[in-house]
Amino acid sequence: MSSNPGPRLNIDNINSHVRAAKYAVRGELAVRSEEYRAALLNGVADLPFKQVISANIGNPQQLDQKPITFFRQVLSILENPTLLNKPDVLVDHLGYKPDVLERAKRLLGHVGSVGAYSASNGVPAIRQSVAEFLERRDGFPANQADIYLSAGASSGVNTLLHVICADEKSGILIPIPQYPLYSASLALLNAAPVPYLLDEAKNWGTDLATIKEAHDKAKAEGIDVRAIVIINPGNPTGASLPEEDIRAVIDFAAQERLVVLADEVYQTNVFVGEFISFKRMLRQMQRDKPGAYDHVELASLHSVSKGMVGECGHRGGYFELVGFNPAVQAEIYKFVSIMLCAPVIGQCLVELMVNPPQPGEASHDLYRREYDAIFDGLRERAAALHKAFEQMEGVECGAPQGSMYLFPTITLPPGAAEAAAAEGRSPDEFYCMRLLEATGVCVVPGSGFGQKEGTLHFRTTFLAPGTEWVGSIVKFHQEFMDKYR
Amino acid sequence: MSSNPGPRLNIDNINSHVRAAKYAVRGELAVRSEEYRAALLNGVADLPFKQVISANIGNPQQLDQKPITFFRQVLSILENPTLLNKPDVLVDHLGYKPDVLERAKRLLGHVGSVGAYSASNGVPAIRQSVAEFLERRDGFPANQADIYLSAGASSGVNTLLHVICADEKSGILIPIPQYPLYSASLALLNAAPVPYLLDEAKNWGTDLATIKEAHDKAKAEGIDVRAIVIINPGNPTGASLPEEDIRAVIDFAAQERLVVLADEVYQTNVFVGEFISFKRMLRQMQRDKPGAYDHVELASLHSVSKGMVGECGHRGGYFELVGFNPAVQAEIYKFVSIMLCAPVIGQCLVELMVNPPQPGEASHDLYRREYDAIFDGLRERAAALHKAFEQMEGVECGAPQGSMYLFPTITLPPGAAEAAAAEGRSPDEFYCMRLLEATGVCVVPGSGFGQKEGTLHFRTTFLAPGTEWVGSIVKFHQEFMDKYR
Repeated sequence: MSSNPGPRLNIDNINSHVRAAKYAVRGELAVRSEEYRAALLNGVADLPFKQVISANIGNPQQLDQKPITFFRQVLSILENPTLLNKPDVLVDHLGYKPDVLERAKRLLGHVGSVGAYSASNGVPAIRQSVAEFLERRDGFPANQADIYLSAGASSGVNTLLHVICADEKSGILIPIPQYPLYSASLALLNAAPVPYLLDEAKNWGTDLATIKEAHDKAKAEGIDVRAIVIINPGNPTGASLPEEDIRAVIDFAAQERLVVLADEVYQTNVFVGEFISFKRMLRQMQRDKPGAYDHVELASLHSVSKGMVGECGHRGGYFELVGFNPAVQAEIYKFVSIMLCAPVIGQCLVELMVNPPQPGEASHDLYRREYDAIFDGLRERAAALHKAFEQMEGVECGAPQGSMYLFPTITLPPGAAEAAAAEGRSPDEFYCMRLLEATGVCVVPGSGFGQKEGTLHFRTTFLAPGTEWVGSIVKFHQEFMDKYR
Repeated sequence: MSSNPGPRLNIDNINSHVRAAKYAVRGELAVRSEEYRAALLNGVADLPFKQVISANIGNPQQLDQKPITFFRQVLSILENPTLLNKPDVLVDHLGYKPDVLERAKRLLGHVGSVGAYSASNGVPAIRQSVAEFLERRDGFPANQADIYLSAGASSGVNTLLHVICADEKSGILIPIPQYPLYSASLALLNAAPVPYLLDEAKNWGTDLATIKEAHDKAKAEGIDVRAIVIINPGNPTGASLPEEDIRAVIDFAAQERLVVLADEVYQTNVFVGEFISFKRMLRQMQRDKPGAYDHVELASLHSVSKGMVGECGHRGGYFELVGFNPAVQAEIYKFVSIMLCAPVIGQCLVELMVNPPQPGEASHDLYRREYDAIFDGLRERAAALHKAFEQMEGVECGAPQGSMYLFPTITLPPGAAEAAAAEGRSPDEFYCMRLLEATGVCVVPGSGFGQKEGTLHFRTTFLAPGTEWVGSIVKFHQEFMDKYR
């Protein structure tokens, strides 16, 4: 042995599945954008823009979205319960309404201290509150024992895929385009992603024939297809699924005995029609055709990160299991217990999200005003961005329906493809990199989510305030097209 | 297909590695203890005890430990930054000292909103603060780029083992007894635990000959031993390693090219001697013998959950990497980015932990008083519990050294082993179950951590206040011994 043989771990001998995982949302473009941000902070002046717009990630409070006052007032008391010794100061001098104090007291009664571990699956009373929310939302019973509080939905997806995937033959149907958490998690688990294309012509809805084809092809190749992932409202697509799509997916899942994983974190970000949960639809189908759907297993996920809550940094969320075998649920419980518990403050935020101030309660009016203003702001920005896309040459984008994203198709001149290839990049990646360099606007190329062969897209959030950045995209696009035409 | 073929997932077709993982700290005994707690809350009166004492888990704030005032005051402002608009109210009416407001302002300047995602590896300024703490602690430089903020140390261990373990031949030396996070994580990853026994006769220190033997045996069996886990101060043993043990481990790791994973979450829970970090020792050895240790890779972990902070529910922690290949670090960054970021409030708590109020600052005196009172309380309770063990027949336990645990040996009469076998339990599990049923005190059997063949132990925290519960253990033990003698 020489005196310095170098480190034991290198890129060739570490876990190859980690290496294989891809996560574009925080990839090279995101890293470059953070370098620009740091340079601007340090007064570097030779950049052609004055600020970086992180439109690459659904991070509302990094941009314009303000936290909901009621939520944060309660959390401030949970962090410092001695404030409750001075109710007059809170009410008279700080404007806390009595229902803020009441809620904080009640939550503290349930959690003890937010600095203590909770039960592995979450504080029982908070799970109960989630169950009651689900009953109100869906009109069907929910059981707190089937709710698992998690550190955001990501952690819930990680848990579920860990349990469902047994080996490299275990297949999971995932939409294309998809939020790359799914493909990355499957890569880490060395399980088989079974991609099915969403139908851009149908506003990115699901197409059963396509799903069936993907399923049957994988099965013929020896893949044991076990589950289907649906993201509704869609990420990155922004689609909000109609009832018939949801019914068709459940019907197919029942036929093929697929576990349904319903990622419903954008359930309040719906501009067109109303959100329909997979749980509600499954229960209706079970009621309407007794026996036919009793065996369907559904896991549906929600989060405090999105919607009008937008509290990503708090890492709160939950999933509900329907129809799971009790012995499998016990294994899920054990799995989550190894990581101890979800952040307790995040759990409390879940409780606030599912049980906000009601009409007649002191904090309700402000809550409603704040909530509506965020909702309206997002809808307006989505419409403005969409309008800009409509004017851009070679860009096509359906009307905004939901979530926080638009996912336009871009048709680029052949010259752009050649220039991209010369740089070792895909054309959409090349386009997004030039956009960032020219404008400071960071978006994610469609290839980071998967896209139909021969098509190009990018995903942008519509969270950033103002119209200047939208204008800079329009201007860049025109120049880019002119250059490579 | 019948109309109800049952759920797709069952205990025999899910991920067998999840099934194989064991986590006794929150296993059957813990579940039973929670049932008792609920029964007592609901007024069920036929239990022979009035309260459940959760001595099974190091969860300080579930028991007597109060949060540090400075920390929680700052966090309350981070959750509700509008409080900063009323500095007079905070200072004059609520007793917040000016340095609380200053710290909150500074942290908000760095994070923006605690509801926003941070960088995947954590807020840069907080990583910088951790690096400065490490420099002060160890007397050697630290680089913020090598610090990764995590959701408690558990999440850090999960990350590191994911990257290090390539396949089922990848071996990790783990101490026996050990905190079961390690064996459970290796089971999930289908990698090979390579157990080495700690030396109970040497106060649970490391014995190099034993480590070497375990290593060589695994190597001879074709295991690619890649890393060694050291928990110092020890969990479940409470040991605080002397300098010579640490040196010997580093020397061995250098020789055999093993990554050193130093779990140092109990670094402030030291009653005997002083805590010596692996980082400091490695840097000293590198300085004293140039070239000989440059290739050693060290990952050391810390957490806000333990020590006088005790904020488990906030899920904050970090790990520092030393000597890792940059390409491997990039993969670690990508891995953590898939789960987005650690809870931002927990990250802020890490900053407060590593950078508490200093002498001369307004909050320092109270901080110091609170810190010392917690430290002294833990030492006193450890001593009282130890004294009780010394009086118990067949129980042997070294003097408390550190962490939050005692791990006594118990020698049980043959009748107990027979009764245990009749119940399908190991004798220590049987003993702990009877203890819980008789006294409401929940401890963890030694078999949950691993123990030398033919020996029996249990782990108990010394966090619970009062002496009544200790007395109830002594009484139970006498009756148990008399019954099975």
